[in-house]
Amino acid sequence: MDKVYGGIEAGGTKFVCIIGTGPDDLCAETVFPTTTPEETIRQVIDFFNGYSGAGSLSTIGIASFGPLDLDTNSPEYGHITRTPKPGWERTDILGIVKSALGLPVEIDTDVNGAALAEHLWGAGKGTDNLVYITIGTGIGGGGLVNGGLIHGLVHPEMGHICIPHDREKDPFEGCCPYHGDCLEGLASGKAVELRWGKPAEELPEDHPAWEMEAHYLALGISNIICTLSPGRIVTGGGLLKNPSLLPKVREKTREYLNGYIDSPRITEDIDNYIVIPGLGDYSGALGAIALARMSG
Amino acid sequence: MDKVYGGIEAGGTKFVCIIGTGPDDLCAETVFPTTTPEETIRQVIDFFNGYSGAGSLSTIGIASFGPLDLDTNSPEYGHITRTPKPGWERTDILGIVKSALGLPVEIDTDVNGAALAEHLWGAGKGTDNLVYITIGTGIGGGGLVNGGLIHGLVHPEMGHICIPHDREKDPFEGCCPYHGDCLEGLASGKAVELRWGKPAEELPEDHPAWEMEAHYLALGISNIICTLSPGRIVTGGGLLKNPSLLPKVREKTREYLNGYIDSPRITEDIDNYIVIPGLGDYSGALGAIALARMSG
Repeated sequence: MDKVYGGIEAGGTKFVCIIGTGPDDLCAETVFPTTTPEETIRQVIDFFNGYSGAGSLSTIGIASFGPLDLDTNSPEYGHITRTPKPGWERTDILGIVKSALGLPVEIDTDVNGAALAEHLWGAGKGTDNLVYITIGTGIGGGGLVNGGLIHGLVHPEMGHICIPHDREKDPFEGCCPYHGDCLEGLASGKAVELRWGKPAEELPEDHPAWEMEAHYLALGISNIICTLSPGRIVTGGGLLKNPSLLPKVREKTREYLNGYIDSPRITEDIDNYIVIPGLGDYSGALGAIALARMSG
Repeated sequence: MDKVYGGIEAGGTKFVCIIGTGPDDLCAETVFPTTTPEETIRQVIDFFNGYSGAGSLSTIGIASFGPLDLDTNSPEYGHITRTPKPGWERTDILGIVKSALGLPVEIDTDVNGAALAEHLWGAGKGTDNLVYITIGTGIGGGGLVNGGLIHGLVHPEMGHICIPHDREKDPFEGCCPYHGDCLEGLASGKAVELRWGKPAEELPEDHPAWEMEAHYLALGISNIICTLSPGRIVTGGGLLKNPSLLPKVREKTREYLNGYIDSPRITEDIDNYIVIPGLGDYSGALGAIALARMSG
């Protein structure tokens, strides 16, 4: 019997669970809102327990919002750590899923998972040095260097880099509970809603919010390019549903780097350097499948 | 006959050339100021041609200031690209050394080289995820992820990340010819000298320059931690000769991260997380030896 893998994209707003082996071979899927840890994880367990397909479910991957403890030597390995999300702090998401399903479980951040999936099957094919950034309610980034996911001390928290903030042009103080006006504090969906009084999806395309959003995202992406020199940057998340945003981000990134990063990929062909996901909204869930495949 | 390796640390101020196999086995060394490419590289060639030791010189490594073209498919592979250093733009440092000595030559940035040497023999032993930052006339950073040097599009240019700059507290505009007030533009030795009217080494330990310097460096290091999550950060370069600077940088880095990066390595033991080089002033030159060893 062929092996199949379970993927859990654990997001702050919704959970996506899928079963299969890759983007062209998915046999089951469910989506539900993120509520309490107990209720949400019970729905995850019920979904996988209810699976009755042909393939044998061999390993589960979790691509989760964080921060996560990913130190395999830590007693809290696989726990969500200090999230501001009510009820979820210190949730042992890996342990609960593992003991309920009796299967091996792999875990990484949602954005590291998405980077891996885009590397294997999507817009990052062919590059071993890739960054995936999501710009939604929050901002996160993950990636691969030399073909391996970026870990070390913990895992990347790219949304929390600090960037220039001109308070005369933008008096909004930022909304990150830890850092105030870090990238996420200034440019996340939550920041946009608090600054302009309505959610990003209700702001017209010519609203000044989008110029400002592109400005902050380009500052953040420029910093990521200077630090990691990725071969490509894949950008996902809700705010990019506005199709005018990404072209502005590309233009400003090129402007801010000002020719110093001397690659025609940026100076002449940035449209193919900062790109949208090849896997649409499935980067995270397929990332969870990819994490499971890597080990099993 | 045993193999030995040649190492060239090509700096903007001086060149260091060494011959040996590692920190405990160096048999020849020379240092000379960086002048024109012709004169400087001729001195390099003369040094290696004059070597008459017991070991057979097998491979040369170059750890060079940059930016460099490190794309092995590029016709300009191994060239210094767009440096503001007069005369050095588009210098084929790899090609000239290679054809003059008739030996294989490896090249990477000075800071990637230093990171590799610290990883093999110095303060980065035991971690596969390491960043090396130098704070001297300029600011640069390199590193390893998963045990491999960071490359991708080109190579890291960590000195050129943008950081918050409060012009009321610090009206100095920054001195980076490409970005104005990027990290290097605000916190390099050149910036310190231009802002305060005298070189950093002439400023007393209680001069307000050092608080400000620590502030900018901590912002930069916080960004690097959020982006790369390195297991350790090694800091070298002339400005750290002031022993009061690094403790301030550590304190402010911990303060700015504000507990979000939830690791006791930062919250409780940052003195062993942001550290000085284990190889003293030899990280770069030994990095060149390490680059040569890797290939030959």
